[in-house]
Amino acid sequence: MEENKFSEIAKSAKNASKKIASLSSEIKNKALLNIAKKLEENKSQIFEANTDDLEQAKILLQEGSITQSTFNRLKLDENKMRDMIQGIIDISKLEDPIGKILLRRELDDGLILTKISCPIGVLGIVFEARPDVISQISALAIKSSNAVILKGGKESVNTNKMIMNIIQQALNETEGFPRGVLNQVFSRDDVSEMLKQDKYIDLIIPRGGNKLVRFIKENTKIPVLGHADGICHIFVDKSADYKKALKIIVDAKTQYPSACNSVETLLIHKDFSMGGILLDDLKNAGITLISEPDSWHKEYSDKILAYKYVNSLEEVIDHINEFSSGHTESIITEDKNNAKIFMNSVDSAGVYHNVSTRFADGFRYGFGAEVGISTNKTHARGPVGLEGLTIYKYNLEGNGDIVKDYAEGVKTFTHKDLI
Amino acid sequence: MEENKFSEIAKSAKNASKKIASLSSEIKNKALLNIAKKLEENKSQIFEANTDDLEQAKILLQEGSITQSTFNRLKLDENKMRDMIQGIIDISKLEDPIGKILLRRELDDGLILTKISCPIGVLGIVFEARPDVISQISALAIKSSNAVILKGGKESVNTNKMIMNIIQQALNETEGFPRGVLNQVFSRDDVSEMLKQDKYIDLIIPRGGNKLVRFIKENTKIPVLGHADGICHIFVDKSADYKKALKIIVDAKTQYPSACNSVETLLIHKDFSMGGILLDDLKNAGITLISEPDSWHKEYSDKILAYKYVNSLEEVIDHINEFSSGHTESIITEDKNNAKIFMNSVDSAGVYHNVSTRFADGFRYGFGAEVGISTNKTHARGPVGLEGLTIYKYNLEGNGDIVKDYAEGVKTFTHKDLI
Repeated sequence: MEENKFSEIAKSAKNASKKIASLSSEIKNKALLNIAKKLEENKSQIFEANTDDLEQAKILLQEGSITQSTFNRLKLDENKMRDMIQGIIDISKLEDPIGKILLRRELDDGLILTKISCPIGVLGIVFEARPDVISQISALAIKSSNAVILKGGKESVNTNKMIMNIIQQALNETEGFPRGVLNQVFSRDDVSEMLKQDKYIDLIIPRGGNKLVRFIKENTKIPVLGHADGICHIFVDKSADYKKALKIIVDAKTQYPSACNSVETLLIHKDFSMGGILLDDLKNAGITLISEPDSWHKEYSDKILAYKYVNSLEEVIDHINEFSSGHTESIITEDKNNAKIFMNSVDSAGVYHNVSTRFADGFRYGFGAEVGISTNKTHARGPVGLEGLTIYKYNLEGNGDIVKDYAEGVKTFTHKDLI
Repeated sequence: MEENKFSEIAKSAKNASKKIASLSSEIKNKALLNIAKKLEENKSQIFEANTDDLEQAKILLQEGSITQSTFNRLKLDENKMRDMIQGIIDISKLEDPIGKILLRRELDDGLILTKISCPIGVLGIVFEARPDVISQISALAIKSSNAVILKGGKESVNTNKMIMNIIQQALNETEGFPRGVLNQVFSRDDVSEMLKQDKYIDLIIPRGGNKLVRFIKENTKIPVLGHADGICHIFVDKSADYKKALKIIVDAKTQYPSACNSVETLLIHKDFSMGGILLDDLKNAGITLISEPDSWHKEYSDKILAYKYVNSLEEVIDHINEFSSGHTESIITEDKNNAKIFMNSVDSAGVYHNVSTRFADGFRYGFGAEVGISTNKTHARGPVGLEGLTIYKYNLEGNGDIVKDYAEGVKTFTHKDLI
């Protein structure tokens, strides 16, 4: 798509974002339920489109240009479809994140300040393979009153088109729902075009592998919400309970090795008496152990675990702050003071004590929906729920109030919180 | 300064940021009061350094390479010094923004999630002329447990060095306060070096003219907190109360014309019966009126006001969303419904009703301190208090908990909020 055409889409998304900004919860939820219903009614068409994509993908798989796991993520089956539809219904039931009163303060008699949550504006979403992302992100955008431009992976283009067509039909049939809220683009060039549209796009959310995320983070001035890497650590302190340590590490490494919150590096205190046995038991659990220094910054996403003996908690903190991607780290210890020092000093989105790193997830945290996991230090950090798609504005209501009166001391502020 | 040297400073600031992250409120407040005391004791040295800067600046002023207002901002007098010192004492009295429990949730029996506020890390501050910024930002950084790298304008280099020396002395004498939290750099190249340090610097805050801010926003991948322009609008609706309208516009334009929250464009409903009289009265108040379309995106920062007659509230909203810098806009109307539509549909940090735009300010909002005013759509928007220098992390404490138990349905989440 040429540059001009993309900026037209971005501009029209911006216009749509103003319209959806003050849409009632009722219409938004009606739209979500319509989408769920339409997807259910038309799922055979989606499966057909998905079959077309899978046939193409099979060739790519045989050629070796996509991996088996990409192929698996591409495939929509009855289970995934059911989860996809249920996910939209679940989002319709969540509290509306927009229009929440975050602060109400009397600045002076009759001069009332209100801080109120509002949508960010236009979201740019770049995702790979998984076609279920399209309905999930569309539902999150609608619920949070944001417009969105979606760019999916080329492997799932037929599925993506079909799902978006059905969603658009559902929205067209929802009375009062504005046009142009959801937009889809298709070509590779569209990604670079998207990254340039800082005038119209307010936030980019990449959903995919770390190569994609890193490329995006390095090529745009638009804020990016996400994480490139998930290099999570577990530290086994000298006072660790052996059973807890083994159980947690096996869970964190094997329960879903390609997840971003699975552990990549194990640090063991040199005075932990069961270190050798622990390593043997981990091998017996099917984990390959590596202890080369160049593995400290690698994300294996497989049943491979780097490990290192350390001399002190201080060394652990330094190691993690140097090599971690800032995602999630856990200390296994019976020493509460060490746990406290670890949790205060490690600068990551999640700092855990005697718990598997795999808990870093919006659903497990009870957010009801997950936009993604962020390793940013501003806006939103860790698992991000609907709140991460909102910002706020300040309303100020008065009766002819002017600053001169306060500057000259004729009036003084009362600054009384009303809620 | 060469690249290597700068990244050394940035790296050491990052290390210091880990140390100040968990510093007690007591030590931080003691440090602030020490700074205030030292500045008071050594103010004659600061005035001397400032006199040196002013002598150089006088030449620049005569050459025309700096403006009179830059020269004025550069000058420290007894009043400014008193405000500067009082500002630090005030910050010491504010609530500590770090370590606040934002959420505490039982995920399951004995598995407790806590969302807790924490510092962002390292702040990069670029400021012009006003040497009082250095003590203000240093105090805000200390209170919020962030490390900072400051780059001031070359015109105030002697004053900046002297103030920073005195602050560092005060910190050195504060028991338990870590080294390396505050850092100052001096050369023009340091700005471009700072903008490259996305590995170590987490947030850039520019404090200066729109040229500086725009340059920074366009040349870094680090999040930038601030605003380039302040193109604020006032709309006089057809039902506006004349007295309120006149009083508010005069305040918003003349009380401090170079402030970013002063009004730049006046939109008048064509059916407002007093439009002509209003324009005459504004002229009588010393305001120059302009009505050329190329003024819609200009920030005059002077007693110059662009104006335009409009046909409808819709036209007003479109005009503002097209030309506004997203800072602050006000509607003057007796029609509550129109006020509501305006406040919902205008996408700016502040949307006001019957109030001067000049109220957009952290102190007037009752924040006790102001980091700056942001027109961003993520992280912090509008006047930003100490909270804008914080993010959060998630602590999760358990007793050997693993995700497998939940994935396999052996256990289920309770998700009970504890506060």
